Amino acid sequence: MPDKQVIVTGAFGFFGRHVAKIFSQNGFYVIGLGHGTWLRNEWQNWGLSEWHSCDITINNLSIYAQQPDVFIHCAGSASVGYSMAYPMQDYEKTVTTALSVLEFLRLCSPKTAFIYPSSAAVYGIAEQLPISESVPLNPISPYGVNKRIVEEICQSYAKHFSIPIAIARFFSMYGPFLRKQLLWDACRKIADNDLTFYGTGKEIRDWIHVTDAARLLLVLSAHASKRVPIVNGGSGIGTPVYEIINRIITAMDKPVSPLFSHQPKAGDPPGYIADIRRHSKYGWKPEVPLETGIDEYVQWFQAGAS
Amino acid sequence: MPDKQVIVTGAFGFFGRHVAKIFSQNGFYVIGLGHGTWLRNEWQNWGLSEWHSCDITINNLSIYAQQPDVFIHCAGSASVGYSMAYPMQDYEKTVTTALSVLEFLRLCSPKTAFIYPSSAAVYGIAEQLPISESVPLNPISPYGVNKRIVEEICQSYAKHFSIPIAIARFFSMYGPFLRKQLLWDACRKIADNDLTFYGTGKEIRDWIHVTDAARLLLVLSAHASKRVPIVNGGSGIGTPVYEIINRIITAMDKPVSPLFSHQPKAGDPPGYIADIRRHSKYGWKPEVPLETGIDEYVQWFQAGAS
Repeated sequence: MPDKQVIVTGAFGFFGRHVAKIFSQNGFYVIGLGHGTWLRNEWQNWGLSEWHSCDITINNLSIYAQQPDVFIHCAGSASVGYSMAYPMQDYEKTVTTALSVLEFLRLCSPKTAFIYPSSAAVYGIAEQLPISESVPLNPISPYGVNKRIVEEICQSYAKHFSIPIAIARFFSMYGPFLRKQLLWDACRKIADNDLTFYGTGKEIRDWIHVTDAARLLLVLSAHASKRVPIVNGGSGIGTPVYEIINRIITAMDKPVSPLFSHQPKAGDPPGYIADIRRHSKYGWKPEVPLETGIDEYVQWFQAGAS
Repeated sequence: MPDKQVIVTGAFGFFGRHVAKIFSQNGFYVIGLGHGTWLRNEWQNWGLSEWHSCDITINNLSIYAQQPDVFIHCAGSASVGYSMAYPMQDYEKTVTTALSVLEFLRLCSPKTAFIYPSSAAVYGIAEQLPISESVPLNPISPYGVNKRIVEEICQSYAKHFSIPIAIARFFSMYGPFLRKQLLWDACRKIADNDLTFYGTGKEIRDWIHVTDAARLLLVLSAHASKRVPIVNGGSGIGTPVYEIINRIITAMDKPVSPLFSHQPKAGDPPGYIADIRRHSKYGWKPEVPLETGIDEYVQWFQAGAS
């Protein structure tokens, strides 16, 4: 049995399962907690040694979590649109669960490294690109506000109770098993010969492959401290939406062109590029080129997305 | 029956009861919600037309609150020390209740003016005195963090859901029925001939009488908007702790002098004075001189504090 243990909440989700796999591949005993109906052989294939389907509460944590070396809190809402329609539910999924974990760690396991996957949504509309981790946060959706609130609670638990913490602010994370957002919608639309898209196509996003993102959390788990290091989870490269869509069209081998509605989506800022100067400090950099990642995604989609 | 209605949560508490009285005196029908065992003639004396002892949940609000003109959320934790010992409970008292109110208003009464009594604790250690409302917030206790989180949720509900809101950040509020903090502790100690106090005695605080504070919320209730005006609830005058204690000693007519331990209390910053330049914008200013307020407090204390 490995001598290091990690808890991954939200392990059934898109990001959580990739995080579980990376930690498993790096010698961790992985305990997954969260919601989802998952067969044993499936979660075992994702590197989990245990999977407990449960709410993230102090009670459940005291049963299943004990004293892990690392705690990765992937559970939470992951949709700007949902947060606009259901702000309080978004809050409960994101903030209440994170607070329960931090309170559990304070009471029962204060030396555990708590690693929080936050979001570039905390920045809101950037005054300047690329976006440095030190700019004032000005989120423009309840989702971004709630991620920011978790960051503040992290700072509070680190400062007042010496919990070691690190935070990654992820930009546009993508990869197999993501069944929403641009790549998913685009694959479905293009497969259905629907070529109309929201926005202008010129919106800039910074794409990060889910495997690179999961590896960043592994790297950060060795740097958690009560000073709470924060790192942008992005590539430093801005890519307009139309380039992503054209790449998908190419990968699908369709002789078509996208059309844009020029109607922006509420809560969607026009431009996002990560400032990546802090990456070198942690010896991490993204390794999956965007083209390779999109091709892999399209293959997964065309193979039935399962 | 008055044509304007206000809900006051936490109306049994020190501040809430004074808020209820001021609104009642200004023609409001006052509905109080919160915890506390209160006899009918007592809450009627404080100006309440209804008192419902209950948790602040969306369910209870939908029963008792309906569509008030103004909603004053006085319920919440009010102790730095408590927040250090029980950070999650402090959070639930302060943040979860405020979020429930805002969500109730979003769903059922989006034109109600929501007035939030925040705290100068959101500022943390001031880099410069007096403290302007526009400085970056840097709270140094979970209590301050939680008040700041409520302010952010206010901003979010105003921006995303157009709820009209106003915030007052109160400095050292005092007055009859406050049974904790400096004046209470000092009265009890001096009455017991215990003259030892924490700190140096030179800590500066900005004192505001509870009646002035309650009147500020009444004034703000006409200015709530989705731009969320924020006003310091302070006098603009810094008074060292030893002066307060000496005034109490004088009012009690005791021929003694205080002794200071020179040990600071955790989470207590050394200096707080409000920048009051925004007061003129709202036509409000404090009216109770500190000496008068302390003398009144000592009289209340000596009459049995009931």
